[in-house]
Amino acid sequence: MTVMNPYGHLEDLKSPNKIGTRDLSVYSLVQSSRLDHTPPLPKVFHGHFKLNHGPPSTSAGHPEEIKNLFPNLFGQPSVQLVPCDGPSYNEDRKLRVGVVLSGGQAPGGHNVIAGMFDYLQVHAPGSVLYGFKGGPAGIMRNKWVEITETLVYPFRNQGGFDIICSGRDKIETPEQFKQAEETVTALDLDGLVVIGGDDSNTNAALLAEYFRSRKLKTRVLGCPKTIDGDLKSKQVPISFGFDTACKLYSEMIGNIMVDARSTGKYYHFVRLMGRAASHITLECAFQTHPNVAIIGEEVHAQKLTLRQVTNSIADVVCKRAHLGKHFGVVLIPEGLIDFIPEIENLIAELNDLLATQGCDPQGHWKSKLKPACRALFNSLPHNIQEELLLERDPHGNVQVARIETEKMLISMVEAELFARQHEETFKGHFKGQAHFFGYEGRCGLPTNFDATYCYALGFAASALLHCGQTGLIASVSNLTAPASEWVVGGTALTELMDVERRRGKNKPVIKKAMVELDGAPFKKFASLRDAWAVEDSYISPGPIQFSGPTADDTCYTLKLEVGSL
Amino acid sequence: MTVMNPYGHLEDLKSPNKIGTRDLSVYSLVQSSRLDHTPPLPKVFHGHFKLNHGPPSTSAGHPEEIKNLFPNLFGQPSVQLVPCDGPSYNEDRKLRVGVVLSGGQAPGGHNVIAGMFDYLQVHAPGSVLYGFKGGPAGIMRNKWVEITETLVYPFRNQGGFDIICSGRDKIETPEQFKQAEETVTALDLDGLVVIGGDDSNTNAALLAEYFRSRKLKTRVLGCPKTIDGDLKSKQVPISFGFDTACKLYSEMIGNIMVDARSTGKYYHFVRLMGRAASHITLECAFQTHPNVAIIGEEVHAQKLTLRQVTNSIADVVCKRAHLGKHFGVVLIPEGLIDFIPEIENLIAELNDLLATQGCDPQGHWKSKLKPACRALFNSLPHNIQEELLLERDPHGNVQVARIETEKMLISMVEAELFARQHEETFKGHFKGQAHFFGYEGRCGLPTNFDATYCYALGFAASALLHCGQTGLIASVSNLTAPASEWVVGGTALTELMDVERRRGKNKPVIKKAMVELDGAPFKKFASLRDAWAVEDSYISPGPIQFSGPTADDTCYTLKLEVGSL
Repeated sequence: MTVMNPYGHLEDLKSPNKIGTRDLSVYSLVQSSRLDHTPPLPKVFHGHFKLNHGPPSTSAGHPEEIKNLFPNLFGQPSVQLVPCDGPSYNEDRKLRVGVVLSGGQAPGGHNVIAGMFDYLQVHAPGSVLYGFKGGPAGIMRNKWVEITETLVYPFRNQGGFDIICSGRDKIETPEQFKQAEETVTALDLDGLVVIGGDDSNTNAALLAEYFRSRKLKTRVLGCPKTIDGDLKSKQVPISFGFDTACKLYSEMIGNIMVDARSTGKYYHFVRLMGRAASHITLECAFQTHPNVAIIGEEVHAQKLTLRQVTNSIADVVCKRAHLGKHFGVVLIPEGLIDFIPEIENLIAELNDLLATQGCDPQGHWKSKLKPACRALFNSLPHNIQEELLLERDPHGNVQVARIETEKMLISMVEAELFARQHEETFKGHFKGQAHFFGYEGRCGLPTNFDATYCYALGFAASALLHCGQTGLIASVSNLTAPASEWVVGGTALTELMDVERRRGKNKPVIKKAMVELDGAPFKKFASLRDAWAVEDSYISPGPIQFSGPTADDTCYTLKLEVGSL
Repeated sequence: MTVMNPYGHLEDLKSPNKIGTRDLSVYSLVQSSRLDHTPPLPKVFHGHFKLNHGPPSTSAGHPEEIKNLFPNLFGQPSVQLVPCDGPSYNEDRKLRVGVVLSGGQAPGGHNVIAGMFDYLQVHAPGSVLYGFKGGPAGIMRNKWVEITETLVYPFRNQGGFDIICSGRDKIETPEQFKQAEETVTALDLDGLVVIGGDDSNTNAALLAEYFRSRKLKTRVLGCPKTIDGDLKSKQVPISFGFDTACKLYSEMIGNIMVDARSTGKYYHFVRLMGRAASHITLECAFQTHPNVAIIGEEVHAQKLTLRQVTNSIADVVCKRAHLGKHFGVVLIPEGLIDFIPEIENLIAELNDLLATQGCDPQGHWKSKLKPACRALFNSLPHNIQEELLLERDPHGNVQVARIETEKMLISMVEAELFARQHEETFKGHFKGQAHFFGYEGRCGLPTNFDATYCYALGFAASALLHCGQTGLIASVSNLTAPASEWVVGGTALTELMDVERRRGKNKPVIKKAMVELDGAPFKKFASLRDAWAVEDSYISPGPIQFSGPTADDTCYTLKLEVGSL
């Protein structure tokens, strides 16, 4: 059978077992077993419901500026879905809705779409759901596919974003807003749901504002997605994907811990996703009890130098050597380097210097660095020096994300311990093993929690559109209770916003949620880490289970944040 | 509470929840749920049994030489346990038994020990089981711990080897054999079980022969362990740990595949464990359907050059680019470099040259390389050249295992595609992402298959000792049937052996089992890979499940080998 593949090319497909764009004959047993799993719904969706409106909203900061940027949306209340006796006012209305996946994958995205679809089937039969292909570019280029049961079925409870794929484009310029307007007008959309992180949800708010200012009927809602966990607030307790990703990483960390203890001779340095915030590292620390977990926010708050970070790890190695233990596990957030002020300075100087002068092979260029930066540069391992000089993006800037921080720290701890051996303050041996867990966690099969949470978010998004809402982010809370008790609503996107001054202009932003050093999770971690450093209280979480007593558990940090632990 | 930790140092432990050496309060929910799981037993252990003796055995090669090396053991039959009506002849005999874990971790080791222990409790009550600590060194130094229910319970169905830890020492010299004799005599052991790979089982046979020649009562048995899957034969269908490790790696590969397809812009190169043989890569290929999987044995048989391997990958990238697909997944066995004859030559020349002359920074030393080797060296990416020159073991040899083959291949494919772009035979883009999965798979929670298989192996080992057997490897077969139907016995270790000439002496070896190019698994793979190359028939196996319909499945290669698929 020759068909058009999702990339627009003709392809000869051998399998007769295709449903929609997927060949079910190549599904694994576990994948197949998930297809017919129906996540439980919050009980508000068991009958009729209406909206309860909260008080007028404000913003996370600079309300006057946010009001100027969002004259049509600012101040609108957040809403909550509550049960009611009679039929809801919009129940007979059919909807034409679009949905788009924006940015990096997070487990559960497919269930948001499945939830939106199922809501429309049940509560607004005759509605149409369009999936824009390849992220926001699909809106601008009017590229979409109609979501049908045949299309959505093979993706129920499955990882990935491949039902319609995702993309990193942004709708930013006046021309792009115009293109979006043309698309939603051509499709006659009542609503558009943007599934994405902080930037994408900011974009959703701007679109909502723009469409309203243009008097279009198209409502726009956001949906909180990111494995990094840095899109959250009082109203949006967690972003989807975080639960699955942390459990996947923790499974692997746990396996490595058992290996470390059995072998007795390696220190494993594990770099984890989380460029802007260290939530993943913190959650994985609770799930596994490593000997060291570095929280970038703390490094930044205490203005630690790279040497201090190195020494703090070396101190733990020394303490453990005293107990006869020459092994351990160290967790490092991907963004560590960005949290160390002196490295930020060095990179800024390097960017300037290399842009203006280049570097001569003899190294004379180094004398142009300020003394503190020069000393820091010289203290770095040779391969990291090379990475700093060679790996540059098209704008000539150092690509911090490419730096293998875990290898850098191993080299530096090694050098420090070597010095201590000479001073006879360390008697032992140290061998490092480097790991980076990234892609492995973005597309796993969603945990029961993420599958259920996303399905509820999808129902919430469609329900809010059904009730004519715009400029909200779908929000489901009370998440540590059973799913039937979850509270469903929408939070005004402007309520999450502040402004940032960029190139002389006020830009609205949803501030990334950082690990709060006075929050319950970090304080709990801080109270436990000294014991974790020396005792081997390693936990091996094991593989994610979809049935049995362990299947419905959720994250430690979430439970600590809401006070249920 | 201050106690002696397993490393011989005093440690202050805070937790009151310790059982044996483990603190159950830090077990994850999944770990805890596995503690009380009792694996099903082959039905021969449901009642009385006796031994059926097979015909006299021979060896895998050079029977005369093997006979000379094992005068007391050679020719002894393999045995099978079969049900019988009356009590078995040894049923009242108490045993004193030792067990040791040798070499790298493999999921299931703890269940072998638990199985040995439980057999003795049930069938030979009053017996004593000693666990030698830290591998064979524990035998030589007479370091052990008595295995009790309290000690073994926290390790039931758990990953790792940390109940008694493992080690890589070998019992080789006459003094070391003498030390072993002293230990087994001092402990008055009836039997010793060595859980290990090919080398360790060879060592077990040598010990069995030595003890018999010394007229000691201590019998010695082996047990087939290695995640690499290269210890297997007609009689020993699989080594334990392979099933769990392959499923763990496949889970991660599957996640990466979904990510690749969703993102649409990366080629992921995944290096997998398997230094000597490519069984893991082959099994993971069946479990996930990658676009390319390189089988080292095929590369070797076809005497492929590195350039040919590179080109074969680049060809797939080009074909996929024609279909609009700029993403893919490539699996590479850890030992690939060892399978490429020209690289073997280069490394041998480099070892010689650097040992005798060193290398001058100007690179004049390169002119000493033979032309073919020089050309190959010059074609390698810069960082691989550096690794070849810098990373050397204490004997001055290149450390092949340290070479990041996946990164090397990415660089080389990139260069090849760049050339093809200039020739206009490739229109597309190529971005590689490198992964190495190793430690993550060695200590996972054993799958149901490995848990059950290992428990049966443990029962088998104790039963064989109970029947007075020596020089056998515990062997359990018919493994694709339900566990109750499994066939239990012991295979003469000498039957697996051949001799190798090393330093002018005949050394007995159990030949590593390679991927057979005319075996059913490889042939099946070869028949499917062209389709996998261009179609996206990716499978995402998902996390290992311990309950539900998918929990008891085992490996594809095993099923193909025994013809049940």
